Amino acid sequence: MTVSVPGVSVDGGQEALAILDRARAEVDPVLRSAVDSLPPEMRRIARYHFGWQDAAGRAVTGNAGKAIRPALVLAAAEAVGGARARTAAVRAAAAVELVHNFTLLHDDVMDRDPTRRHRATAWHVFGDPDAILSGDALQALALRLLAGDTHPAAVPAVGRLTDCVIELCEGQQVDTALESRDPRAVGLAEVLRMAEAKTGALLGCACAIGGLYGGGSAEEVDSLDAFGRQAGLAFQLIDDIIGIWGDPLHTGKPAGADLTARKKSLPVVAALASGGVAAEELAALYVGPYVEGELERTALLVERAGGRDWAQAEAADRMGTAVGELARAVREPERAEGLLALAEFVTRRSS
Amino acid sequence: MTVSVPGVSVDGGQEALAILDRARAEVDPVLRSAVDSLPPEMRRIARYHFGWQDAAGRAVTGNAGKAIRPALVLAAAEAVGGARARTAAVRAAAAVELVHNFTLLHDDVMDRDPTRRHRATAWHVFGDPDAILSGDALQALALRLLAGDTHPAAVPAVGRLTDCVIELCEGQQVDTALESRDPRAVGLAEVLRMAEAKTGALLGCACAIGGLYGGGSAEEVDSLDAFGRQAGLAFQLIDDIIGIWGDPLHTGKPAGADLTARKKSLPVVAALASGGVAAEELAALYVGPYVEGELERTALLVERAGGRDWAQAEAADRMGTAVGELARAVREPERAEGLLALAEFVTRRSS
Repeated sequence: MTVSVPGVSVDGGQEALAILDRARAEVDPVLRSAVDSLPPEMRRIARYHFGWQDAAGRAVTGNAGKAIRPALVLAAAEAVGGARARTAAVRAAAAVELVHNFTLLHDDVMDRDPTRRHRATAWHVFGDPDAILSGDALQALALRLLAGDTHPAAVPAVGRLTDCVIELCEGQQVDTALESRDPRAVGLAEVLRMAEAKTGALLGCACAIGGLYGGGSAEEVDSLDAFGRQAGLAFQLIDDIIGIWGDPLHTGKPAGADLTARKKSLPVVAALASGGVAAEELAALYVGPYVEGELERTALLVERAGGRDWAQAEAADRMGTAVGELARAVREPERAEGLLALAEFVTRRSS
Repeated sequence: MTVSVPGVSVDGGQEALAILDRARAEVDPVLRSAVDSLPPEMRRIARYHFGWQDAAGRAVTGNAGKAIRPALVLAAAEAVGGARARTAAVRAAAAVELVHNFTLLHDDVMDRDPTRRHRATAWHVFGDPDAILSGDALQALALRLLAGDTHPAAVPAVGRLTDCVIELCEGQQVDTALESRDPRAVGLAEVLRMAEAKTGALLGCACAIGGLYGGGSAEEVDSLDAFGRQAGLAFQLIDDIIGIWGDPLHTGKPAGADLTARKKSLPVVAALASGGVAAEELAALYVGPYVEGELERTALLVERAGGRDWAQAEAADRMGTAVGELARAVREPERAEGLLALAEFVTRRSS
């Protein structure tokens, strides 16, 4: 079933939703059977996290997320190697989704997020140890699934996926450490690097693994990685804009949430780094905690200091780079359509 | 350098220490180079955890642990496949040590342990997020190291190691959940299963991976796994005895520590399950928190209810099974000597 999303070009949005639905239908059985192979306690926590059962263990019709990463694996495999490569990559797509969910379980513990996908997070329901351990088990399960694949792409895919996990961890560490630093001492380059590691790396890895299963050359696989990374950064920039000025699609987080939380998001850091009067005024506000009633003024200062324009231009720039990389990896434009639709989809919605 | 350990037969103890020293010398360069390949923040935390640098990043001559697991990998490879197999297994031995250390980093977070190897734990120095993330990165690094090995044993070794991680997680979950349960409702079989998962699984996996690199048959590899598991359980039983009645070698934790912490260790659960008058009296004590001055009485009740005798007999029984499995895996007794010396070493010391 596809539904239209207001504000997204009907064709592109519907196409992406159809691609996501199809990917979910292909990957879900492998994902569920992998999770069901876990021992009882790990299975129970993982099934709760995926939204397949409630805290008491009763089956529920859940919302296991949009499955963007597995869809990227499958679309990249098909773009490079055709329908047969797509089928061969289903197991790898499930492995990428398992890694994504392992990082969500751990990120929620670290960020103390009480909800995810409109449900209480695993640590909130079962406690930190259960969330940490089930995340650990999902990482192992992902790599077991991938390493158990006899396809020649499986071994290099394990290398890509483990490298990616290490990059994700580094990105999350830098992000966590950022919170306690003086906003005036945070550089734009390091925040961009952090965002690429946290958000771009796994999207790039998903595309690269698809390319490996499609039998792509080293250059094609690297271009697919760069495509996913740059699209991921564009997504993060737009997500950060939404975190300040609100979501034009009226979904996701409320306007200003990132400002009241004093988050050092990309538009804010760009604004602080701009060096003008508005930047100084913003810095003076941002070193202290949020004071009720100051939201509008703070958002206006980020805008006056150029944070909004910079983020919008940077997002467009990153998408341009992504499209260029995609053209290098997939020469026939019609074969690249699925990946392009997915990239446009992620950069137009908050997750 | 080898040093003699009082109370351990001089030959056995010295032989084991020499085996450990040699294994550490072989594995250390691979381990250090793997850790040094991590990005800056992950590297910093991991190097601290391994005792190679202090919290400020200055190099220290550390105590990175006894390297029992890598020594088991190398000894098993050599026992089954000779000197060349031993050399080929060094990378796998480093991978096993990385997995062990990933679980230590996370266990310390969950158990809130402030010290490990006489130093402040990583979470205690850097905070929970850093300890969680560096553990995650070490798991990925371990599997990257192993999957990047072109040896034909590498792929089945990844399967064994990921299965083992999942079992370790399940064991730690059950152990954590045990703490808040009524001591009278805890069964001996489930605690034995938990101890096998928490302590036996990785020792068994280390031996099995060595067997794979030695070119052992499926039966030999499974017997090596069983040897490590049973020796691991024997070790846990003896460690639990030490946790109540003290360490005859005067190292490790003080006598009674497990009782004052109301730990549901194996001798305690066996005592509680024995059903006599002493068991009832022990249960009445153990449902409440520790009261100053009760230590001697509690230990006496565990002993009277048969907990000490059971644990000692069970440890001997497990070691007997381990030796039998070892004989099945390695037919020539002189080739099995190294593994046997290591098993005797771990079961005679608290870690």
